[in-house]
Amino acid sequence: MKIMLLLGSSRKKGNSEQLAQDVLKDVPHTEVFLHDKTINQIIDKRHTASGFTRVDDDYEELLKQFLAHDIIIFATPLYWFGMSGQMKTFFDRWSQYLRDERFDLKAKLAEKKAYLIITGNKPDPKVSALPLIMQFHAIFQYVDMTFVDYLIGTGNKPGEVSTDSEAFQKTRLWNERFRSV
Amino acid sequence: MKIMLLLGSSRKKGNSEQLAQDVLKDVPHTEVFLHDKTINQIIDKRHTASGFTRVDDDYEELLKQFLAHDIIIFATPLYWFGMSGQMKTFFDRWSQYLRDERFDLKAKLAEKKAYLIITGNKPDPKVSALPLIMQFHAIFQYVDMTFVDYLIGTGNKPGEVSTDSEAFQKTRLWNERFRSV
Amino acid sequence: MKIMLLLGSSRKKGNSEQLAQDVLKDVPHTEVFLHDKTINQIIDKRHTASGFTRVDDDYEELLKQFLAHDIIIFATPLYWFGMSGQMKTFFDRWSQYLRDERFDLKAKLAEKKAYLIITGNKPDPKVSALPLIMQFHAIFQYVDMTFVDYLIGTGNKPGEVSTDSEAFQKTRLWNERFRSV
Amino acid sequence: MKIMLLLGSSRKKGNSEQLAQDVLKDVPHTEVFLHDKTINQIIDKRHTASGFTRVDDDYEELLKQFLAHDIIIFATPLYWFGMSGQMKTFFDRWSQYLRDERFDLKAKLAEKKAYLIITGNKPDPKVSALPLIMQFHAIFQYVDMTFVDYLIGTGNKPGEVSTDSEAFQKTRLWNERFRSV
Repeated sequence: MKIMLLLGSSRKKGNSEQLAQDVLKDVPHTEVFLHDKTINQIIDKRHTASGFTRVDDDYEELLKQFLAHDIIIFATPLYWFGMSGQMKTFFDRWSQYLRDERFDLKAKLAEKKAYLIITGNKPDPKVSALPLIMQFHAIFQYVDMTFVDYLIGTGNKPGEVSTDSEAFQKTRLWNERFRSV
Repeated sequence: MKIMLLLGSSRKKGNSEQLAQDVLKDVPHTEVFLHDKTINQIIDKRHTASGFTRVDDDYEELLKQFLAHDIIIFATPLYWFGMSGQMKTFFDRWSQYLRDERFDLKAKLAEKKAYLIITGNKPDPKVSALPLIMQFHAIFQYVDMTFVDYLIGTGNKPGEVSTDSEAFQKTRLWNERFRSV
Repeated sequence: MKIMLLLGSSRKKGNSEQLAQDVLKDVPHTEVFLHDKTINQIIDKRHTASGFTRVDDDYEELLKQFLAHDIIIFATPLYWFGMSGQMKTFFDRWSQYLRDERFDLKAKLAEKKAYLIITGNKPDPKVSALPLIMQFHAIFQYVDMTFVDYLIGTGNKPGEVSTDSEAFQKTRLWNERFRSV
Repeated sequence: MKIMLLLGSSRKKGNSEQLAQDVLKDVPHTEVFLHDKTINQIIDKRHTASGFTRVDDDYEELLKQFLAHDIIIFATPLYWFGMSGQMKTFFDRWSQYLRDERFDLKAKLAEKKAYLIITGNKPDPKVSALPLIMQFHAIFQYVDMTFVDYLIGTGNKPGEVSTDSEAFQKTRLWNERFRSV
């Protein structure tokens, strides 16, 4: 089982990254910071006769890498009560590749297991992140991906999440599981 | 009262645009297609000593234009059970300008009235768009913007929303209101 | 197509009833005020060897009546951000009858079409009723009942909902549909 | 700090009770099984000239007992994607007492801290319980009660929740906290 960590934050060393590192301590995995990639917004050509056109950015390479893993850990801070724009764009671009015959995207997505890490601050993310969890649930359900579990951490300034004992308790539980995968 | 239509779709002549045009028939307004603008993803420097740095794209000009209006109609298709990446990025960038002394962003946002148009197809957007409506509600509440009303239209291919009689009934109600603003 | 109106309010002549009457103007239908019935809370005996025991109240008769209709309009005020206790108890008791061989409850529920009317006041029910709509959606999905549409009205004192022009616009649309059923 | 456990299940020895007992191991507390009480559905007389009338059941005594505690742990199974009818009725009746001058209900509720335990089975309660958590959040926010935390356990048959290691990890965390209250 190959594990990929997909980081949606627009800053390094933030709280969602910190929780993810704890989850993956001593666990072999691939790590991608979406922010390090050039990923354009989707141009919807589903209803254009010529269909989608090739986009010259880092997305296709990233998608191939993504599809080579079995377990995906999505980690995003709660930005404006949703996932980061970086991560939203990652999902939006699926719409193009679902129609690309070179990829059997829908079938491949259905084989994957998803974990979700969200960090936020005020108002309490344990409540304010719930619509986002519902959105991820709907996304995963739509493509038949298994949504195993989610973890909500509280923190604003870098490092602050360390004081969220419950979040760290859960990272340890996940870590045990991932070590024995 | 100056009205702005902010279109989040990544294609022209789509269903959310069609509903918005109906809402604003014979109503003077400014129209912005986010897709026509170059808007970079945010780089979060809230916790960097030097703070945010100037970004060279179309956002600042757009934000000034946005702030010059009293009523904002946000129109977005439901992409992966959320607003489009284009529109999400629009909100994410607020985080930089909330800390920019040249703008009194929070105070100005609190004076605005927001309307929301969402279009989707399957599963039924009347239910699947609800987490997104909650997200918009949370955003508007956070900045004290008045969330007047929302409208959910059903349609996939361009023009399909025309068959959604309820949505069009509501556009007429909004249109009457905007004509007398 | 036989239509039943199931009223969950604990007072007569309230706003949810008023909207429902407008929806069903000149439409033959059966009307039940849950409040007029004696319906006990469920006693869960799913995991008791002897199973559920017969309950001596009005529920079984009501359930038979309910099952004799094709379209059900559920109307409830938003009490504490949920359906009324009266209506919740109506659903809870399904758990007993799903295990009662005399009824083929699950199969029969799957044939029905559901409409939902919710009325509330402050905070704005257009947002605060959304978790309840999600709950109804989940209930209907669980039993394969078709959730056709919902309608949210705003009003507190009896009659106040009359000023909600959008709600009344929608009642007329539904009314046209039900007249031609 | 006096602690009350309010159990909403309609069966004894169920999973929500089991989690609650683990949370309160060796912690002095008052325990009330709503199912053991006679609590009538509310009769809404907010807009009746004469106002609410005295109801002859166990509610008023229970409410007094409730108000004598500082921390309330609400424990309910997920029945039809909501709290049990028993617990819903408990909240509905607040509407009468908010208008009863003998009680200073709103002010007193604002002093309390709430914890929430929900147990469910299929579909996965970690997602299907979210609208209910939003409802509790809205209730507590409406009366200014502090919603400290929630815990979702998975299990159907009595005892099944024991296999939910994450839920039990969290009960231990809460237990430590309550021991030192």
